[in-house]
Amino acid sequence: RHFYNSPNMAKSKFEYVRSFETDDTCLRNCYIVVRLDGRNFHKFSEQHGFTKPNDNRALGLMTRSAQSVMEELEDIIIAYGQSDEFSFVFKRTSNWFKRRASKLMTHVASQFSSSYVFYWKEYFEEQPLLYPPSFDGRVVLYPTNRNLRDYLSWRQADCHINNLYNTVFWTLVQKGGLTTAQAEDRLKGTLAADKNEILFSEFDINYNNESALHRKGTILLWKKHEETVIRRMKQPNAEEKEVPVTRSKRRVENLYCDIIGEQFWEEHPDILEEDNC
Amino acid sequence: RHFYNSPNMAKSKFEYVRSFETDDTCLRNCYIVVRLDGRNFHKFSEQHGFTKPNDNRALGLMTRSAQSVMEELEDIIIAYGQSDEFSFVFKRTSNWFKRRASKLMTHVASQFSSSYVFYWKEYFEEQPLLYPPSFDGRVVLYPTNRNLRDYLSWRQADCHINNLYNTVFWTLVQKGGLTTAQAEDRLKGTLAADKNEILFSEFDINYNNESALHRKGTILLWKKHEETVIRRMKQPNAEEKEVPVTRSKRRVENLYCDIIGEQFWEEHPDILEEDNC
Amino acid sequence: RHFYNSPNMAKSKFEYVRSFETDDTCLRNCYIVVRLDGRNFHKFSEQHGFTKPNDNRALGLMTRSAQSVMEELEDIIIAYGQSDEFSFVFKRTSNWFKRRASKLMTHVASQFSSSYVFYWKEYFEEQPLLYPPSFDGRVVLYPTNRNLRDYLSWRQADCHINNLYNTVFWTLVQKGGLTTAQAEDRLKGTLAADKNEILFSEFDINYNNESALHRKGTILLWKKHEETVIRRMKQPNAEEKEVPVTRSKRRVENLYCDIIGEQFWEEHPDILEEDNC
Amino acid sequence: RHFYNSPNMAKSKFEYVRSFETDDTCLRNCYIVVRLDGRNFHKFSEQHGFTKPNDNRALGLMTRSAQSVMEELEDIIIAYGQSDEFSFVFKRTSNWFKRRASKLMTHVASQFSSSYVFYWKEYFEEQPLLYPPSFDGRVVLYPTNRNLRDYLSWRQADCHINNLYNTVFWTLVQKGGLTTAQAEDRLKGTLAADKNEILFSEFDINYNNESALHRKGTILLWKKHEETVIRRMKQPNAEEKEVPVTRSKRRVENLYCDIIGEQFWEEHPDILEEDNC
Repeated sequence: RHFYNSPNMAKSKFEYVRSFETDDTCLRNCYIVVRLDGRNFHKFSEQHGFTKPNDNRALGLMTRSAQSVMEELEDIIIAYGQSDEFSFVFKRTSNWFKRRASKLMTHVASQFSSSYVFYWKEYFEEQPLLYPPSFDGRVVLYPTNRNLRDYLSWRQADCHINNLYNTVFWTLVQKGGLTTAQAEDRLKGTLAADKNEILFSEFDINYNNESALHRKGTILLWKKHEETVIRRMKQPNAEEKEVPVTRSKRRVENLYCDIIGEQFWEEHPDILEEDNC
Repeated sequence: RHFYNSPNMAKSKFEYVRSFETDDTCLRNCYIVVRLDGRNFHKFSEQHGFTKPNDNRALGLMTRSAQSVMEELEDIIIAYGQSDEFSFVFKRTSNWFKRRASKLMTHVASQFSSSYVFYWKEYFEEQPLLYPPSFDGRVVLYPTNRNLRDYLSWRQADCHINNLYNTVFWTLVQKGGLTTAQAEDRLKGTLAADKNEILFSEFDINYNNESALHRKGTILLWKKHEETVIRRMKQPNAEEKEVPVTRSKRRVENLYCDIIGEQFWEEHPDILEEDNC
Repeated sequence: RHFYNSPNMAKSKFEYVRSFETDDTCLRNCYIVVRLDGRNFHKFSEQHGFTKPNDNRALGLMTRSAQSVMEELEDIIIAYGQSDEFSFVFKRTSNWFKRRASKLMTHVASQFSSSYVFYWKEYFEEQPLLYPPSFDGRVVLYPTNRNLRDYLSWRQADCHINNLYNTVFWTLVQKGGLTTAQAEDRLKGTLAADKNEILFSEFDINYNNESALHRKGTILLWKKHEETVIRRMKQPNAEEKEVPVTRSKRRVENLYCDIIGEQFWEEHPDILEEDNC
Repeated sequence: RHFYNSPNMAKSKFEYVRSFETDDTCLRNCYIVVRLDGRNFHKFSEQHGFTKPNDNRALGLMTRSAQSVMEELEDIIIAYGQSDEFSFVFKRTSNWFKRRASKLMTHVASQFSSSYVFYWKEYFEEQPLLYPPSFDGRVVLYPTNRNLRDYLSWRQADCHINNLYNTVFWTLVQKGGLTTAQAEDRLKGTLAADKNEILFSEFDINYNNESALHRKGTILLWKKHEETVIRRMKQPNAEEKEVPVTRSKRRVENLYCDIIGEQFWEEHPDILEEDNC
């Protein structure tokens, strides 16, 4: 309706739309957890022939992608993954993206997803990726160390329950010759002890000796280490010479252990900050 | 501190952490816009040798990825992209993901990012992708058609201003033999008319004849079309025969035109819903 | 743990706590509705002997308090009240309190509540107020005129349903000699038409002739009027003389009419702003 | 546009507007602070002739109103007031109003405001209240005991700074004969030590001996006490007799002491809950 003789004038006329953005800053001094979940991964895993009950290539690719996220977003102190989900915990005092929830979760979702496709070949080799997969995410805040630990315990307990079920289920199918419907029937109403017993007495499998990766999921942590490199240096009035230079670096480390009990947290006292801060 | 004799009991003890999730439902009857922006794409474009001022391979890949988003999230009615950004507009009555902002923006960011890597080869052929790129996103709500149109106009005005500047800048460098510092100096304080004049009088370039893709950016729309397939059918008491079946389908269409004026909206009356609803 | 030799230093050490405040700005270009509801007003009305089914002193006091709110918060364009509730609508372009939801709703709740006690005597005269009553509030946003009108229609429909029920109920008790339990029984499952019929055939009451205040609730609007005052003025080189000065003023007006149909909105075209803005 | 033959049908047509309400639940396991601030109290205090620098009637009325809030909203564990502001702290595990921020703050603002008018006479006696005053409010969340204590320390440091300034300022005016402009000039750039010195050397006033109410503000706490009442009781096969019955009750207690240091919190260990919960 108006006439503008310059594009800058035109643009400035529209710029008011920026004021419709709302502030979604995360409450300070809380742990920020971003959890990603695969979308339609049941179908995705079938189309790509994932082995049952666990496909180590797929789990490795998830972990590789999570590592890529940690390397990009420095304030992540611990990550935990199992099946087609991964949780990333930002330190409570983080000011990454000024704690804007939308930026944090979209960046995590984006970096994870592009990495998943980028590193596919390293894990699946000749088997082609049929289409670009996707993950959705959410942000949850936890005010205390107890709440955060209970969150991680919740995810690990979920891993345990599902993996025990899936292990028995697929053993009944693959070794016991049951159909999937028969296996489902057989497991209806069974407790953890019953499932352990089926594995042990019928298939001679001690569940506790199964792979820790499958039973416990994957924990990613920062590990500090010293790195020594040789540098050529020249002092004034002296010949150039080679000097060893040692620097403290950190890299992402994978663990497959219990994080529900006290031991893990006692062995890694640097992950959590004091509540009294 | 407690002893639990079953993993289900253990899990239920931790499940209270779910109640820390907060509701981020988008206000009803507003357009939901998700905008993605490339992270560190200045560096990314240099490392991958993008041509200046515009790289059609890169723009094509952005559009291909946006198309993949539209095909996955059906309630997107229009998308607009330029440079390393893309905006997606959900219809105001959409109930996708129950209008949860976090789910909407992470899904868009994830699908776009995995597609960007997945389709890279279709656009960059032998040139390898060096590392997985990432995008961050945000959600903005617009209550009225006017507000939404002004948002899209704002992005297209931005495209215009940047592209005019970049076109002159790189012409001065590539054809005029200026250094980048000299070109920057030359353009300091110039108006749009001045820039058009430099192109025209010194390089015989009429800016309005430059590629619409570069001047206007890319609009993605749904286009309905009829599709006829032959089906073999059998009526009772009759032989099986081939029957043509026509169905209305829709596919994503690319446009490179002005969306600031009235004409576009008059020609596409189905994109926006009435305000009076 | 630290020693500070000045209170200003001490204060500045604590000031970080301000950054825990979160932004609750209301989305622009939406109508902002603040609704107040009396807390425990069933008990309050019994303790203060409100007449049944409607107490005109109580309704008058609610309206007087709402008027006090409107006079303090200039951007309220319409208010609607019934029973122990009142809704206040801020114009969609309001920038009052920078559209901060918490400020808007607490100011409304506070002004209303202090006014309720302050003006009590004007309506209840010798009957004492036994204790300070309270109201709780909420904020709701409406993007379009249709949504806002439907909100107001919802409240007026609620008024109608409750008042029809209460009118028949208390007529059965007060004139029909039924106990409250018998009246409740009698009305179970009756439709609006049945209730009208009871009033008409048994008590010779035409519900449509009942007080509009009770049937329709109270609408508060701004009404412009001219006000002429006499000012003594002195021109240079002339004697001082009295001059009439006319100014446009506005005051709050009460209406008790239907706001569900079109007529009210056609007669008051200034209340709503165009959606297309 | 439609015809409805019953008001219930009409109402149900409009009820969709309820879905525009958004959830504003406060993050769990955080302290919820509601702070009220008087609106235009500078003007209000002048119009009602408040004594300078402190008016004990006004402070008493603020405290009486805050007490009324605490008695209504049981989960408030501590309140702190000074000048025309009052802060209320809900226990971190509170589930009052399901932790809905809007309900919490409007209820506090409403109860406080109606109480302020209701109890006015108890403090100002014959001096009339000229108009209903108002307060605005906000909600802030604090995740840890340290953050909450720092919030309260911040408000008490603010009280200290303002009261020291006001005490010297009004002493210079009231006893020193300066105009308010002269007093302002005199205090420009002075430190706390300077202000103490002026009071002491020129007016023989030791600031530390001034009223603790003015220097420290008002803390409201719950205090448990035993209450014994005589009840007439009748055992089977026995005569009715009077029996003393002792019950634990709690009432609001006022304190005017330092809450910045450790001592207060050591003496009142029940106010805060453990962070490790």
